[in-house]
Amino acid sequence: MGIHVGSSSGLSTSDPEDEYVRSIALFATLLCACIVIGHLLEKTRWINQSVTALLIGLATGCIILLTSGGKNSRILEFQEEFFFMYLLPPIIFNAGFQVKKKQFFRNFMTITLFGAIGTLISFAIISYGAKVLFPKLDIGYLEIKDYLVALGAIFSATDSVCALQVLNQEETPLLYSLVFGEGVVNDATSVVLFNAITSFDLNNFNATEALTFAYSFLTLFVLSTLLGIFVGLLCSFIIRTLYFGRHSTDREIALMMLMAYLSYITAEMFELSGILTVFFCGIVMSHYAWHNITLSSQVTTKHTFATMSYISEVFIFLYVGMDLLDIEKWRFIEDSPGKSFSASGILVGLIMVGRAAFVFPLSLFSNFIRKNRNEKIKIKQQVTVWWAGLMRGAVSVALAYKKFTGSGQTIQPANALLITSTITVVLFSTVVFGLMTKPIIRWLLPDETDPSTPNSSSGMPLLQNGHGHEEGGNENRPSRKRLPDTPPNMVHQYWRKFDDAFMRPVFGGRGFVSQATGTRDMGVIH
Amino acid sequence: MGIHVGSSSGLSTSDPEDEYVRSIALFATLLCACIVIGHLLEKTRWINQSVTALLIGLATGCIILLTSGGKNSRILEFQEEFFFMYLLPPIIFNAGFQVKKKQFFRNFMTITLFGAIGTLISFAIISYGAKVLFPKLDIGYLEIKDYLVALGAIFSATDSVCALQVLNQEETPLLYSLVFGEGVVNDATSVVLFNAITSFDLNNFNATEALTFAYSFLTLFVLSTLLGIFVGLLCSFIIRTLYFGRHSTDREIALMMLMAYLSYITAEMFELSGILTVFFCGIVMSHYAWHNITLSSQVTTKHTFATMSYISEVFIFLYVGMDLLDIEKWRFIEDSPGKSFSASGILVGLIMVGRAAFVFPLSLFSNFIRKNRNEKIKIKQQVTVWWAGLMRGAVSVALAYKKFTGSGQTIQPANALLITSTITVVLFSTVVFGLMTKPIIRWLLPDETDPSTPNSSSGMPLLQNGHGHEEGGNENRPSRKRLPDTPPNMVHQYWRKFDDAFMRPVFGGRGFVSQATGTRDMGVIH
Repeated sequence: MGIHVGSSSGLSTSDPEDEYVRSIALFATLLCACIVIGHLLEKTRWINQSVTALLIGLATGCIILLTSGGKNSRILEFQEEFFFMYLLPPIIFNAGFQVKKKQFFRNFMTITLFGAIGTLISFAIISYGAKVLFPKLDIGYLEIKDYLVALGAIFSATDSVCALQVLNQEETPLLYSLVFGEGVVNDATSVVLFNAITSFDLNNFNATEALTFAYSFLTLFVLSTLLGIFVGLLCSFIIRTLYFGRHSTDREIALMMLMAYLSYITAEMFELSGILTVFFCGIVMSHYAWHNITLSSQVTTKHTFATMSYISEVFIFLYVGMDLLDIEKWRFIEDSPGKSFSASGILVGLIMVGRAAFVFPLSLFSNFIRKNRNEKIKIKQQVTVWWAGLMRGAVSVALAYKKFTGSGQTIQPANALLITSTITVVLFSTVVFGLMTKPIIRWLLPDETDPSTPNSSSGMPLLQNGHGHEEGGNENRPSRKRLPDTPPNMVHQYWRKFDDAFMRPVFGGRGFVSQATGTRDMGVIH
Repeated sequence: MGIHVGSSSGLSTSDPEDEYVRSIALFATLLCACIVIGHLLEKTRWINQSVTALLIGLATGCIILLTSGGKNSRILEFQEEFFFMYLLPPIIFNAGFQVKKKQFFRNFMTITLFGAIGTLISFAIISYGAKVLFPKLDIGYLEIKDYLVALGAIFSATDSVCALQVLNQEETPLLYSLVFGEGVVNDATSVVLFNAITSFDLNNFNATEALTFAYSFLTLFVLSTLLGIFVGLLCSFIIRTLYFGRHSTDREIALMMLMAYLSYITAEMFELSGILTVFFCGIVMSHYAWHNITLSSQVTTKHTFATMSYISEVFIFLYVGMDLLDIEKWRFIEDSPGKSFSASGILVGLIMVGRAAFVFPLSLFSNFIRKNRNEKIKIKQQVTVWWAGLMRGAVSVALAYKKFTGSGQTIQPANALLITSTITVVLFSTVVFGLMTKPIIRWLLPDETDPSTPNSSSGMPLLQNGHGHEEGGNENRPSRKRLPDTPPNMVHQYWRKFDDAFMRPVFGGRGFVSQATGTRDMGVIH
């Protein structure tokens, strides 16, 4: 009774289905190969998992291209809906689930500045630069909105998936929270930008329009965040009230996964920022729901979310790598390869300038506001923040496809050129910027990278802090007060009082579940 | 940069995509509802998870049907490829991973008898009965092969997913291994049957053809099993040699998941029985690979596989429940509802007779061969084996869709009638047989059901036997010799010697990894 029943019972539709099965099989094999090769290469200082997957994808693409006689290079076609619906949510959710909450919220203002104002500055520079420089390449007609919407929005946003690849939360917590946090927040900016540019009259952009824009951004930001918090709290409340672990530990894990996904998909349904929502849902779940489940479920969720995120990441880079050689897209620029490479060069330059134009001024501004000397962002750190956010990856590719290969559009030369340029930029930035980020961090910030924990996720006894879960240990509450040199933030103190008085008794959380259930204080974990 | 970017940037293709997002969101909500309601209803003796999901699906279908003005009843269309490619493999793999291996292999001969010969007997009776009885209903022209292939193959096979729902491995291990094992083995039979009937001339069925048939079955059975064992061993070997846990526990979990899926998809690609393959892959992985990974990974894989299987099961029943009301199918039989119900009645009768016709004779035969008195299948057990295998579920629906609604075929009245009959049979058997199985087991076999472990999966400290993992405890090797009243099987003794001498040193396994790694003997688990 397998998949092939139809084919063996004589239906005529068997061929595409068989091919689909073959594609999936080959893709699964490649994923396994990426995992094994990535593991073997991990000792080297340069290569990271994403570059490995990208290169394996490229190599496979070459082989398929050669064996199919130049007709095809892909096993699975890159579909942006699949990417946004199924590959991205687990990555962002896991990032929220495992993020060091204290570090993240301490830098929250700077992160929001970078994600909101910074993305706008970068957007303006890239759009304007493209508008000025691209006509010199003589690439054919492009509407002004194409420059603005597409190029600006595609390239102004830091790829949060890429940031996760090169930055290690354990080694460089400040950098990680700044660059990755910016990647989360600027999703909201991108959504607002897209809506704004299609609805506003750009030739008469005045103060009113700017206010409307700011208002839209704030609304979207607040609503998305609140939705994520709401779903996270709801999940915590349900699990705490019903205490699923009594009957089945699988049920609570399933519920956490499904509700996290539900938060993302609901946000997308209401045209909010799904990334922001699922990120905050992950934070809330790790703060409350995670403490309401059995010990087995705690271990399982921690590793399952990380594994799902890991598989999605490898999948994405493999997927993109294999798609890069797609012959259809390159055929359009056969007669003018130089133009495509010039356009890519211009874009890489604009990305670098656009990012520099906000990282340094906004860091200065942020330092000006921060009173604590230890919390200021030093110049070397600024350089690494600038550099680490230069990578453009799968998100850019997905957005470029979305914009330039809509089903209603015929492929114009200009569109094809923009796609090939995007691909070149992604390939270049992932390989070059990606490979050089780790060495640059080591060179610029030798003090911050702690050599004693190079493989922080290794050999940890079950729930230790290996995966960056701040509240890993079960009952080590005093660790909250471990840092005496940084005076506790006032906001944080108020939050803790509020949390202990009102939130934890209702939604659970560390230290607030043992009376009700008792089973997880078995003492099996040190 | 969300899913809705396309819609907000003015592409015309936004509507179906928005609808898809809404469907996914609603479906995820329903899954959560099923989990919560299933949890709340778990204390009742009658309702089980599958019936809950089926009824919630039906109720949702009703609501959608009413709100859409009788036009539509489904959120997601039931697609048999999706079912076979993504929903079925995790369930069967998890069953193999968590199966009590000793129990399973002790009954292996009986299981194979049931799955191979039994399915053939059932197939012959259902096909012949339908051929004789259906023409009396005057339902229109059907080819002889339609009766034979479709009805026989769809209804002769026990639905292994259903068997998992009503039988508990902890409470009734013998029943579970017989009925579920039969469900796994008869997948191979079904594949061979489909191929045989389309290629053989049925009017001249003679001894040569019968031998060819037996040869095909044996080849398929052996090849599928070997493929599963090979992939399982390969995974164990890779993990043992490279020791992934040293770097990342996520990587070994990801590799196990992907390689398990790879075994299924490879089997399907080569037209083998994917279900047999992935089942044996699960068995081998739990015997070797599972002992080569870190303790965190052991806990995680155990629960993750169970959770994925659980979500898939709920998904399937919800999916089927929602699809049952699909108005398109029922429209064809509007003028003759009586015929559809007569056909369903005939089918249910034939299923019961066909199953009785092999369970009792083959049990007798099996008892005749077994020398040990304790291992004989008593008459009450035979009745429950017969009863517990009567359910027909998602697999039947998927096969019926496959056969009767191929894309090349226009829907004929006869085909529509067969589909509605299938749906009626599935609904009736899942609800009636499904609900009555547990009470019948309690009534017929009060001694075997151990009342002290009604919720065997509750509150277990990490790795205890709660989920039926025979080798749950970490170093409790003496438990292998716990049953003194059943003398150890000779085959089993030879296997153990062979396993200890040749397999375990290469592929790992309990007791053969601690020297190499050491990290998991931390003593945190009692």
